[in-house]
Amino acid sequence: MNETATLAAQQVELTHAIDTVWVALCAALIFQMEGGFALLEAGFVRSKNAISIIAKVMIDIMFGGVAFYLVGFGIAYGKSNGYWAFDTGIMEGDLGLGLTISNSLFWFIQMGFAVAAISIVSGGVAERMKMWSYAIYVAIFSAVLYPLAANWVWNPNGWLALRGFNDFAGSAAIHAMGGFAALAGAIVLGPRLGKYNEDGTANAIPGHNLTLSAVGAFILWFGWFGFNPGSTLGAVGKWDLIGSVATNTFLASAAGGIATMLYTFIRYKKVDITMVINGVLAGLVAITAGCNVVSPDSALIIGFIAGTIVDIAVVVVDKMKVDDPVGAVAVHGVNGFFGTIAVGLFSQKNGLFITGESAQFITQLIGVSVISVFSFATTYAIFMALKKTMGIRLSHKAESAGIDAVEFGVEAYTTFE
Amino acid sequence: MNETATLAAQQVELTHAIDTVWVALCAALIFQMEGGFALLEAGFVRSKNAISIIAKVMIDIMFGGVAFYLVGFGIAYGKSNGYWAFDTGIMEGDLGLGLTISNSLFWFIQMGFAVAAISIVSGGVAERMKMWSYAIYVAIFSAVLYPLAANWVWNPNGWLALRGFNDFAGSAAIHAMGGFAALAGAIVLGPRLGKYNEDGTANAIPGHNLTLSAVGAFILWFGWFGFNPGSTLGAVGKWDLIGSVATNTFLASAAGGIATMLYTFIRYKKVDITMVINGVLAGLVAITAGCNVVSPDSALIIGFIAGTIVDIAVVVVDKMKVDDPVGAVAVHGVNGFFGTIAVGLFSQKNGLFITGESAQFITQLIGVSVISVFSFATTYAIFMALKKTMGIRLSHKAESAGIDAVEFGVEAYTTFE
Amino acid sequence: MNETATLAAQQVELTHAIDTVWVALCAALIFQMEGGFALLEAGFVRSKNAISIIAKVMIDIMFGGVAFYLVGFGIAYGKSNGYWAFDTGIMEGDLGLGLTISNSLFWFIQMGFAVAAISIVSGGVAERMKMWSYAIYVAIFSAVLYPLAANWVWNPNGWLALRGFNDFAGSAAIHAMGGFAALAGAIVLGPRLGKYNEDGTANAIPGHNLTLSAVGAFILWFGWFGFNPGSTLGAVGKWDLIGSVATNTFLASAAGGIATMLYTFIRYKKVDITMVINGVLAGLVAITAGCNVVSPDSALIIGFIAGTIVDIAVVVVDKMKVDDPVGAVAVHGVNGFFGTIAVGLFSQKNGLFITGESAQFITQLIGVSVISVFSFATTYAIFMALKKTMGIRLSHKAESAGIDAVEFGVEAYTTFE
Repeated sequence: MNETATLAAQQVELTHAIDTVWVALCAALIFQMEGGFALLEAGFVRSKNAISIIAKVMIDIMFGGVAFYLVGFGIAYGKSNGYWAFDTGIMEGDLGLGLTISNSLFWFIQMGFAVAAISIVSGGVAERMKMWSYAIYVAIFSAVLYPLAANWVWNPNGWLALRGFNDFAGSAAIHAMGGFAALAGAIVLGPRLGKYNEDGTANAIPGHNLTLSAVGAFILWFGWFGFNPGSTLGAVGKWDLIGSVATNTFLASAAGGIATMLYTFIRYKKVDITMVINGVLAGLVAITAGCNVVSPDSALIIGFIAGTIVDIAVVVVDKMKVDDPVGAVAVHGVNGFFGTIAVGLFSQKNGLFITGESAQFITQLIGVSVISVFSFATTYAIFMALKKTMGIRLSHKAESAGIDAVEFGVEAYTTFE
Repeated sequence: MNETATLAAQQVELTHAIDTVWVALCAALIFQMEGGFALLEAGFVRSKNAISIIAKVMIDIMFGGVAFYLVGFGIAYGKSNGYWAFDTGIMEGDLGLGLTISNSLFWFIQMGFAVAAISIVSGGVAERMKMWSYAIYVAIFSAVLYPLAANWVWNPNGWLALRGFNDFAGSAAIHAMGGFAALAGAIVLGPRLGKYNEDGTANAIPGHNLTLSAVGAFILWFGWFGFNPGSTLGAVGKWDLIGSVATNTFLASAAGGIATMLYTFIRYKKVDITMVINGVLAGLVAITAGCNVVSPDSALIIGFIAGTIVDIAVVVVDKMKVDDPVGAVAVHGVNGFFGTIAVGLFSQKNGLFITGESAQFITQLIGVSVISVFSFATTYAIFMALKKTMGIRLSHKAESAGIDAVEFGVEAYTTFE
Repeated sequence: MNETATLAAQQVELTHAIDTVWVALCAALIFQMEGGFALLEAGFVRSKNAISIIAKVMIDIMFGGVAFYLVGFGIAYGKSNGYWAFDTGIMEGDLGLGLTISNSLFWFIQMGFAVAAISIVSGGVAERMKMWSYAIYVAIFSAVLYPLAANWVWNPNGWLALRGFNDFAGSAAIHAMGGFAALAGAIVLGPRLGKYNEDGTANAIPGHNLTLSAVGAFILWFGWFGFNPGSTLGAVGKWDLIGSVATNTFLASAAGGIATMLYTFIRYKKVDITMVINGVLAGLVAITAGCNVVSPDSALIIGFIAGTIVDIAVVVVDKMKVDDPVGAVAVHGVNGFFGTIAVGLFSQKNGLFITGESAQFITQLIGVSVISVFSFATTYAIFMALKKTMGIRLSHKAESAGIDAVEFGVEAYTTFE
């Protein structure tokens, strides 16, 4: 009797250990996606701003991570009234999530999600925003805005969680949240000098180093296999789910890239590699909400649609004269939105196309709409407030010279000897 | 009694969870090797073709991965008659492999192997092949050719598996398979413009960005510690093996690099860093078949031989006027072949040099010979068929201008402002 | 009875498997940090020496790894008299460390630490050292010098281990060890041509490719989440510790980067991105010794101090006319020293600032002082011996031309077509 109790206790210990190994390593994969954001964006902008965008992603990590430690975590996962919490000291105690990992490890993986969300914004404001204003926005976003969305979606008492909203790894809470914030930021900032002509036409501003962007894209693609499967927050009792999440994640990404290859080839007679990268990312973003509840075949379909949507969305954003240098709105905002409602269409449990039921679809639509509007509106307000106080945009002279020279005093490349 | 049954059941669950964590993360490491292939190859070619080769590796992933999902997996791991299978719907059900992970996770790691095999080919056809012809070949290779080799070697009913062929992580089924396909492709395509002079001498065409190649090499090196140890497909009952596989993998890679340093220094008075990278990879390729059965000291020897062979093989391939821009044939083909037979020489269980027995050596020789010839012949035929129908090679004008401009309409680098 | 014994035996097996999965993957993360060292350093030097520094890091891996296999491991973890050991064949048998992983896996992770230590030195001797002399030094360092420090700190019989010295993942044994060796090497070699003017002023020699350095920095940052948490050497019984180690590691890195942003902005009116990267690394180095025993708030403080110290240390080293091209002394030497004594200040158990006790602080101070002096003195002597025999420094003509051309016969970049 005593022996079996000892064995049972040790099994609990083993469960903790297994789930910790899983989450700690997935969290590391999620964290390294920051390098992906930084290098993808750096390659997509002009060389005179390459260092500045890497610095902005470092600010996402450093200011965002510390703000999420000091304030945000308690807002997201403290005792919620359904809309928000304001707890401190929750590194100890039961968060009501049935966790088998320590709260500090849970913090570490959640911090990875938080800085991923804010890193989406860095792309939308590239090549023209002042560094310190951006740092202040990062702190506010990571301390308050993102944690509120996380509270609604993932806190056991969150109003969307209680409605059965399914946003497994964050198409809504992370990607739509970040993407619509990027939209607001890009609108308030206005377009880069020389982006739009007086007659209303747009000029393409090609990225300076596409092999660097490819480095970033591969890092992000890799990291997504921590991002989505790691959202199980454990392996014991969920090992079957991990396999299907990984498979769905892959299939959607491949289908997204293929869709973009075909779309750009048919439409423009050349394959647009920048868009193929964005198509892969669009597939990844779109499957993020539903990778736990859709079939592999549905994952292929979701990815293919996402890879088509992103091509159209990039053009629409550009037509609206919103200058989004790396496509953050189209990739993360629009496809975060699509991916969230796709759960309501393709879920094996209650998707409209699979079972004919519409309740889940409506919940998904409500949830992602509220998050998107919330993110857009609050970011718009904060950017306007910053604009009227410390200013958000570099002078025309500084913008022409490049942020790297003006704010950092360096050139990214001096390959002369 | 009931309690012990519960405990036993929970132990089974824990075993599933542990093995899933292991395989899911190793599979992610294997998948990220694609970034390694892309960047290594991109750096080794001219800048005018850098984007095109990255696109080809993305095609490997996207077309290869989807083809392996739709068709290939069932051919490789369905109910085999010893030579092939044609099953669909094997995401459920017992594959006869004694797996403790889900079939979908098994698919995910096998997909990583499949796209690694085809990515080897992308290097051999660099800088002159049409994109869509390549995409068709990728789909055929990943749907049929590679799965047949995998069936022979790893399907429980495969004729080589039944003979006791030891190809632990795929020196034969992946590397020789990919390397000899690359050879056939390079032959049918013919050399790049300007590679060989009329008097028969060859011109070196140096890579445009060796730091980028180094990024790729380090990614591949890293990923190999998922590739080889992950081929255990589980950790419970195999934890001791994981350690020796990792150690053997490292030692062979180091010895391969050292051999190449010494060889190129002695022969050319300068260390050829491109070849040192290839020497490291050659050591990794060569230990891949036998990392589970050789001693660490043998791993050092195998790596050292591989690092020497690769130097000679590159020269021989060049003398044959086969233009293999990144050394895919020498690294993967020749050393995949060598590594497979090295099992028959150095295996602790039955290697010719260790035990004096020759049976395993003969099995290894037969297996890798059949796979190499099969891969070469089928690829040759498919390339010839594609050549006579839609064409495989860019026009001379397009090749001179560069694939990036012609098929993608971009320049990799525009570092002007 | 028999059933519970079977279950208990299987639990032991599961424990081995879990701990193996954890350590094998953390070891892979640690290994891939070598790519981080190589690319960070390559970007920080001039393009004419970019390949040579990557080659030096490959030498760290290849010569260092093999030397640690053949000799070093036995010196570090053989039967110690408190100061050294000289055992061979310790791939089998009990090392007295209570390991639940195989000795070969333990070797693999320890090899990662050994090559990390020597890779620090490659930065200090950049742009002027002869390759083969460096290779010899690498072999000696990895076979003897580093293993002696590891013996003192981590061997169960090591004199520092017995004193209760807390150097969890190696601020002293790895970072101070490597950093003070880099200092000695840089002093004996002398400054690069053109670094210091006749009037004593210094010239900045900016790095040629800061986006490449960023790639390296993100790789290192990622890898640290294997480096520190992986030093638990297992997860069973330590899962709680893993979470707090990861959190502390992150917070110190973020605080280090923020401190450097503020310091360089206040002092120079521009944010120095090179120093921000070094600030992040300084935070990581400093938390490495104590990440297992300090609180998250203390981790923030330690990181913030480290990020300030590194700015001052870089200036001081430069004032001493020691030419340390990538800041290895300031990042790893000075902050490895600081991080080790910070354990004695901030440890929850016995830190001077937390508990008022000074015993641990004194032990920390003694340990890191002895290691730093030992590393400096032995490296100084070996460099002097090499200088007088085969020479350590390239001719002025070769140095002006660049090591890549002279020793490797290549250019890193030929982006002309």
